[in-house]
Amino acid sequence: MHDWILTLTCPNRHGIVAAISSRIAEGNGDIKEAAQFDDDQTGQFFMRVVFRHPADMGLLRQSLAQEAQRFSMQWALRPSGQVRKVLILVSREAHCLGDLLYRARIGELAMNCVGVVSNHPRSSLAVMLDEHIPFHHLPVTAATKNSQEDQIREIVAASGAELVVLARYMQILSNELARDLQGRCINIHHSFLPGFKGAKPYHQAYERGVKMIGATSHYVTADLDEGPIIAQDVEYTSHADTPEDMVRKGRDIERRVLARAVTWHLQDRVLLNGHKTVIFHK
Amino acid sequence: MHDWILTLTCPNRHGIVAAISSRIAEGNGDIKEAAQFDDDQTGQFFMRVVFRHPADMGLLRQSLAQEAQRFSMQWALRPSGQVRKVLILVSREAHCLGDLLYRARIGELAMNCVGVVSNHPRSSLAVMLDEHIPFHHLPVTAATKNSQEDQIREIVAASGAELVVLARYMQILSNELARDLQGRCINIHHSFLPGFKGAKPYHQAYERGVKMIGATSHYVTADLDEGPIIAQDVEYTSHADTPEDMVRKGRDIERRVLARAVTWHLQDRVLLNGHKTVIFHK
Amino acid sequence: MHDWILTLTCPNRHGIVAAISSRIAEGNGDIKEAAQFDDDQTGQFFMRVVFRHPADMGLLRQSLAQEAQRFSMQWALRPSGQVRKVLILVSREAHCLGDLLYRARIGELAMNCVGVVSNHPRSSLAVMLDEHIPFHHLPVTAATKNSQEDQIREIVAASGAELVVLARYMQILSNELARDLQGRCINIHHSFLPGFKGAKPYHQAYERGVKMIGATSHYVTADLDEGPIIAQDVEYTSHADTPEDMVRKGRDIERRVLARAVTWHLQDRVLLNGHKTVIFHK
Amino acid sequence: MHDWILTLTCPNRHGIVAAISSRIAEGNGDIKEAAQFDDDQTGQFFMRVVFRHPADMGLLRQSLAQEAQRFSMQWALRPSGQVRKVLILVSREAHCLGDLLYRARIGELAMNCVGVVSNHPRSSLAVMLDEHIPFHHLPVTAATKNSQEDQIREIVAASGAELVVLARYMQILSNELARDLQGRCINIHHSFLPGFKGAKPYHQAYERGVKMIGATSHYVTADLDEGPIIAQDVEYTSHADTPEDMVRKGRDIERRVLARAVTWHLQDRVLLNGHKTVIFHK
Repeated sequence: MHDWILTLTCPNRHGIVAAISSRIAEGNGDIKEAAQFDDDQTGQFFMRVVFRHPADMGLLRQSLAQEAQRFSMQWALRPSGQVRKVLILVSREAHCLGDLLYRARIGELAMNCVGVVSNHPRSSLAVMLDEHIPFHHLPVTAATKNSQEDQIREIVAASGAELVVLARYMQILSNELARDLQGRCINIHHSFLPGFKGAKPYHQAYERGVKMIGATSHYVTADLDEGPIIAQDVEYTSHADTPEDMVRKGRDIERRVLARAVTWHLQDRVLLNGHKTVIFHK
Repeated sequence: MHDWILTLTCPNRHGIVAAISSRIAEGNGDIKEAAQFDDDQTGQFFMRVVFRHPADMGLLRQSLAQEAQRFSMQWALRPSGQVRKVLILVSREAHCLGDLLYRARIGELAMNCVGVVSNHPRSSLAVMLDEHIPFHHLPVTAATKNSQEDQIREIVAASGAELVVLARYMQILSNELARDLQGRCINIHHSFLPGFKGAKPYHQAYERGVKMIGATSHYVTADLDEGPIIAQDVEYTSHADTPEDMVRKGRDIERRVLARAVTWHLQDRVLLNGHKTVIFHK
Repeated sequence: MHDWILTLTCPNRHGIVAAISSRIAEGNGDIKEAAQFDDDQTGQFFMRVVFRHPADMGLLRQSLAQEAQRFSMQWALRPSGQVRKVLILVSREAHCLGDLLYRARIGELAMNCVGVVSNHPRSSLAVMLDEHIPFHHLPVTAATKNSQEDQIREIVAASGAELVVLARYMQILSNELARDLQGRCINIHHSFLPGFKGAKPYHQAYERGVKMIGATSHYVTADLDEGPIIAQDVEYTSHADTPEDMVRKGRDIERRVLARAVTWHLQDRVLLNGHKTVIFHK
Repeated sequence: MHDWILTLTCPNRHGIVAAISSRIAEGNGDIKEAAQFDDDQTGQFFMRVVFRHPADMGLLRQSLAQEAQRFSMQWALRPSGQVRKVLILVSREAHCLGDLLYRARIGELAMNCVGVVSNHPRSSLAVMLDEHIPFHHLPVTAATKNSQEDQIREIVAASGAELVVLARYMQILSNELARDLQGRCINIHHSFLPGFKGAKPYHQAYERGVKMIGATSHYVTADLDEGPIIAQDVEYTSHADTPEDMVRKGRDIERRVLARAVTWHLQDRVLLNGHKTVIFHK
């Protein structure tokens, strides 16, 4: 018997929780986790419910669809723990890639990596890939950007990737590709946004003399470094840290923050709320 | 129109969420926050619901009482933001006391301090008290402990204190008093429990050479330093920190951790689960 | 017998440490703490030495002056633990002020508060002041800004204040006053700079949907929110936190970060390095 | 031209810093980093100096030896950045091993892994090893413990390992082996010591209901879980975390803390001070 995850968003009205929980209870379903959020600013309601359900899921799906119509919900219902297909894009640094693959390998992350794309050759990555993971070397220049992105689109389509992770992919996606992947493309930016947007954030941090550095994981949007933020974290730094020291410290923050964001996304814990996110952590 | 906070604990069965949310929805109540927890180890279910309710609370209370009986619930229903009466016990150090009073004064903490008890005279406290707060000097020795605790009991009763906070009160309560105050007496211990129980934990930490020190806020039980933990936090320390440096750093941790615990308790965010706690943070 | 703190800055050359430590050793001085930093980017050298000295300080001062000339040092020599005069400016919020005063009262901070200035009346501050601390109500409008700042200058001069602390003083100092107080005026900004400069940073943070909020303490310069950073810290926030929740969480971060910065400044642990700082923590 | 790292410990007397820095200055050496610590409790003095030296190191070594004799120093002088030979022991979990190897591979850690020992077969490790790293499967039972440890001793000797890292090696070393490896064997314990010593600390943490879990890296001594602590860190946990969730969160803490300890050891930043450590971080 599976657990199921229901996520939904709709305009806030009274009775939503009662309606949903009653429908689940009708089929003798047992709610294991539930979290909700009312955004008073926008009047939107967000909910995530994990439940165990012994009876016919088709019937439940029908009755949930009726509620969805009644309350104008956007909703999704998925088996808990379902392994999803993920495509990972990198450049030369492999710390985030290696970390995600390790977490998948030991069963911590419900991710099936269906491919790795890099604009650099395989040999430049200091990580070992399982043999069954296809590696795509897609070099890119200003002149070839369009066709390179077409190749990425084809790999996404052919592999059935449900999520694309930019795991230190040091290229800016075109507006078109960013839009195509909206809500299913996660980036890790190596600064505590909104500070230090754009290139070389650790060097910017060094020049400014900040006392903490950080990393930010967000959904990719056409607006560079402005996408909905999923996770952030920081560490202390000091006057004695060179930009290279910050890069080194930053690797640890980046992989930690990106792993958190990908985990939450794959567990349906992240709901989009305009240019912000609602995150139902455990 | 008030918001109300409902908290409940009962053996886990399916249909609890549906029952509660339906009862609230019947009276056109609108759920603002909801959190729940199933303890798979004990089979207990815990829930906290904040809702706005336009209709007769008497009727709602009746219908909730029916559900409570049906599901064998322990439950409480209280207006959100209700200011509660708190008695604070201290010895000579006033950092936690001063912090709690400041938070109450600016409206951050829904607490009415109905008295301060110390085993040391008023003059030993480096904090200014509002004039309306009674100060009770209750010196204590081994010989007078029983009668001193009787005085504390009387002050609790006379003041109507709903919560007693040991804000660095360096005396151990008798088993009897600990039992009398069960579930409504919060202590701050100046170590990261279960490390460094008992006296002089910063000196113990110094001797052991740990690299972090901490503080723990817990409900007082007859079993010293073993009560249900509400909040903990830590900071880094180094070889260069003397016990006195740790005491100084510790003051900041202690007041932060105790304020968190008292805030959560007063907001009905803490539910007892045997010798552990369930905490529904925002 | 006092401990002394020597701080110095000069162009880096070999032999500095040997010269300084030999001079101290000549008089049978015993070095208790020493820290140094070579800035490879600028070629500047920074040092802080704490030592115990049994002999004539006049002689030592002379011999140090010779080394200072030889190495083109800027230097200062001060008794350790010396209590310094500090003027504190606030608006309506008193959490930072109350915190600094408490730390001074219990001897944690070697600060003698020689006055509190506010652009709001005394009654708007939810903190009790010791009777010996003068309170100056200096209201300010665009029209009266110049004369109000003249009054501040006079209070600084008359009180002998060696440090001015903007403890949530919600006014922007004029360029002239910022320059007059250069290197001896510390501000607390309620964001993790360089993110969210200017007004209402918590509201900016809410709008952006960040997952952490912070505070930054820095020396005041004519360039708003661009002064050399002394200390920063952050806490997690969530989608459920309103701007008001952030303001509340922020108070704890602000007072902690400002206390750190003022403590380090008063212990001569902060050396200016252009628009950055060198901080020799314990 | 190399940088050199000098570390030394001796009874505290005045003139040590002057003597050492003068010797380095004589040969036109330039001190890049220096840190020291006086332990007032024991009267011991600790120092670490990094310097650039253009002249004959043999001469410098001679003159340092004279000072060492004069001040009864224990001392070591080593080229900075020197890659050292490290043997890593694991059981079935590979997160710490994989992390250390990745850091070495990208040049972050000056470590040459000369072998991996496990009491489980190669196939049970979810990590890929570079081909040049020998893997030793040394199963162990109560009956074979002595001979298995003899094999470990032989591998240490044959490989020339200067450091042995217990990277989640779930066996307790015998007192004899612990003593043989004193000061050059680092363990990671999966709790915030001294809380939760011994087996299954995450399960102990779950039972106690703590609100933070941690990890501790320490030198191995005959006294289990009592060795000198090098690094510690923690993360928040909640009532909703099962022991399995804690194990998962713990992996991140463990690899971070162990990497820090190994890094500091290899950079000669850790000096033993009885059953405690002095750590000169950057």
